Amino acid sequence: MRGTVLYGAGDVRFEEREDPKIIEPTDAVIRLPATCVCGSDLWPYRGVQPVEGPTPMGHEYCGFVEEVGSAVKAVKPGQFVVGSFATSDNTCPHCQFGYQSSCMHREFMLRAQAPLLRVPLADGTLVPTPGVPSDDLVPSLLTCSDVLGTGWFAADAANVKPGATVVVVGDGAVGLLGVLSAKQMGAERIIAMSRHPTRQKLAREFGATDIVTGRGDEGVARIKELTKGVGADSVLECVGTPESMTQAIQSTRPGGFVSYVGVPHGVELNGAQLFFTHVHLHGGPAPVRRYLPELIDLVLDGQINPGKVFDLVLPLDQVAEGYRAMDERRAIKALLRP
Amino acid sequence: MRGTVLYGAGDVRFEEREDPKIIEPTDAVIRLPATCVCGSDLWPYRGVQPVEGPTPMGHEYCGFVEEVGSAVKAVKPGQFVVGSFATSDNTCPHCQFGYQSSCMHREFMLRAQAPLLRVPLADGTLVPTPGVPSDDLVPSLLTCSDVLGTGWFAADAANVKPGATVVVVGDGAVGLLGVLSAKQMGAERIIAMSRHPTRQKLAREFGATDIVTGRGDEGVARIKELTKGVGADSVLECVGTPESMTQAIQSTRPGGFVSYVGVPHGVELNGAQLFFTHVHLHGGPAPVRRYLPELIDLVLDGQINPGKVFDLVLPLDQVAEGYRAMDERRAIKALLRP
Repeated sequence: MRGTVLYGAGDVRFEEREDPKIIEPTDAVIRLPATCVCGSDLWPYRGVQPVEGPTPMGHEYCGFVEEVGSAVKAVKPGQFVVGSFATSDNTCPHCQFGYQSSCMHREFMLRAQAPLLRVPLADGTLVPTPGVPSDDLVPSLLTCSDVLGTGWFAADAANVKPGATVVVVGDGAVGLLGVLSAKQMGAERIIAMSRHPTRQKLAREFGATDIVTGRGDEGVARIKELTKGVGADSVLECVGTPESMTQAIQSTRPGGFVSYVGVPHGVELNGAQLFFTHVHLHGGPAPVRRYLPELIDLVLDGQINPGKVFDLVLPLDQVAEGYRAMDERRAIKALLRP
Repeated sequence: MRGTVLYGAGDVRFEEREDPKIIEPTDAVIRLPATCVCGSDLWPYRGVQPVEGPTPMGHEYCGFVEEVGSAVKAVKPGQFVVGSFATSDNTCPHCQFGYQSSCMHREFMLRAQAPLLRVPLADGTLVPTPGVPSDDLVPSLLTCSDVLGTGWFAADAANVKPGATVVVVGDGAVGLLGVLSAKQMGAERIIAMSRHPTRQKLAREFGATDIVTGRGDEGVARIKELTKGVGADSVLECVGTPESMTQAIQSTRPGGFVSYVGVPHGVELNGAQLFFTHVHLHGGPAPVRRYLPELIDLVLDGQINPGKVFDLVLPLDQVAEGYRAMDERRAIKALLRP
């Protein structure tokens, strides 16, 4: 088969790779009806994160089980499954506490921008849907695997509760799905920070009640104004830069909650400054596996339509254009169809 | 009257100062049967924190109301009251959320190492006891004002729950009362990190089930060993140095909780490293006012005896010796009697 390989900054190739196969008895191989490009793929694509030799790309996936190893019990060939970008045995202590993305046997997935994918720890990582979903639900199911799961964790880790005032910093796909998640969790007011008309529009569709275009001190001042000088209860930091983290912390009221869900790049927090803000801080790689059953149900019941973040659909062999369009912010998120 | 003034590193004087009086109609003046030296007083005493000119010292207090301003309704002359080291109106939004130490009208108290003290925002800051407590309860009531309130917040902010495994980093008075607080909140296992026999003894008396003498990587390894490789549910960081913060974070399981309650000195947190630890982080100046009614009750009911942290009692005019003894770790905490 052919799959996606990143050779260096700006150099994405779609080229011949070995077909995935069962290696461990706990593996499954699945066939992907769709895959996509993640905002986090742009860090190495932009050269912000080093690329050490040709790297197979892609970690968001759902699809049909082709084959399972001899030890796999919970999924069967023919089933449709959704998995997490981080594998988990779903039995170790960290998994039991709901932090499957810190599973003692975790591997971060790669190689999903391809038609076929090997998934280790299949029983603990994959969740089968009840029956085979219609093809138009595939994009939304695909989002559960990372981008929705991560937005959902952002809202959960920021303690979004019914009636809360929420701020979302970042208008990428994770931020937009953070808005959707906050809405589902009952937030009363959701302030999206965005200066892009298409993203503002989608944010409003997902439940944003206010849009703030200002950034830095100006953005913080506007949040304070909208919250009568108090600050927000819950702030979702969905970017990962020093500026966005500072903006998130300063927008939060004392005793409020800040979540951060993308690997921070260049972020250093001064302990004494953080101390006097009185915020709660929680984040990390989203424990998507914890949320998968609930998110799949919400999609299948038609209660949410997170697949709307895909505003560009390309044949998989044009994956390089997907990266370019997202890098240039022409697209929010690119769906790739094999 | 005479009161305590810090002139510079190591230079504590007990000297003539103006008697406190009512300035604002919301003030009270109280007479202190006892006061004490706080671990945080040692930062400027040791020269770690700059001293800008002669600074009146002391922020832990309880005592008899002498006089109140014309707007004070909730406390009366003759009553015995306990207050917080941070004043609060107890009505602003931050106070309503339980973060009175971030009150919009907060002042940090000073001048309490003296026989008389002016307390601003008396109605929102002071809590009267039901009747006049016996003198032997004064030391324990005094701890409610800061050191116990702060240890209690440390346990609460670290989400200590019944059955939890808790680690306390720091064997100063706050850390020891963090042990007591965790015990009250139902922790099953409380691991105190200490290498001082007297402090270890008091930690055990307060509820510690295990003592770890190792520090840094060695200490973390021992915590991991004691928790079967998992890490603790809740870790109370009660020191405020880069080493103690690192030790606290690394001792916590993914999804666990780290609190920090002393102003961090020189602590910088790397965002990416913190991200992969998956911990919750919360701290700041303890909202003592939130806890005062409950803590006062626990003391008056004889359920806790936090006053045991005072292992040195001195006449107030020997306050300089109190600082010295604590600086040299000859005393855990010095009680001063006017």
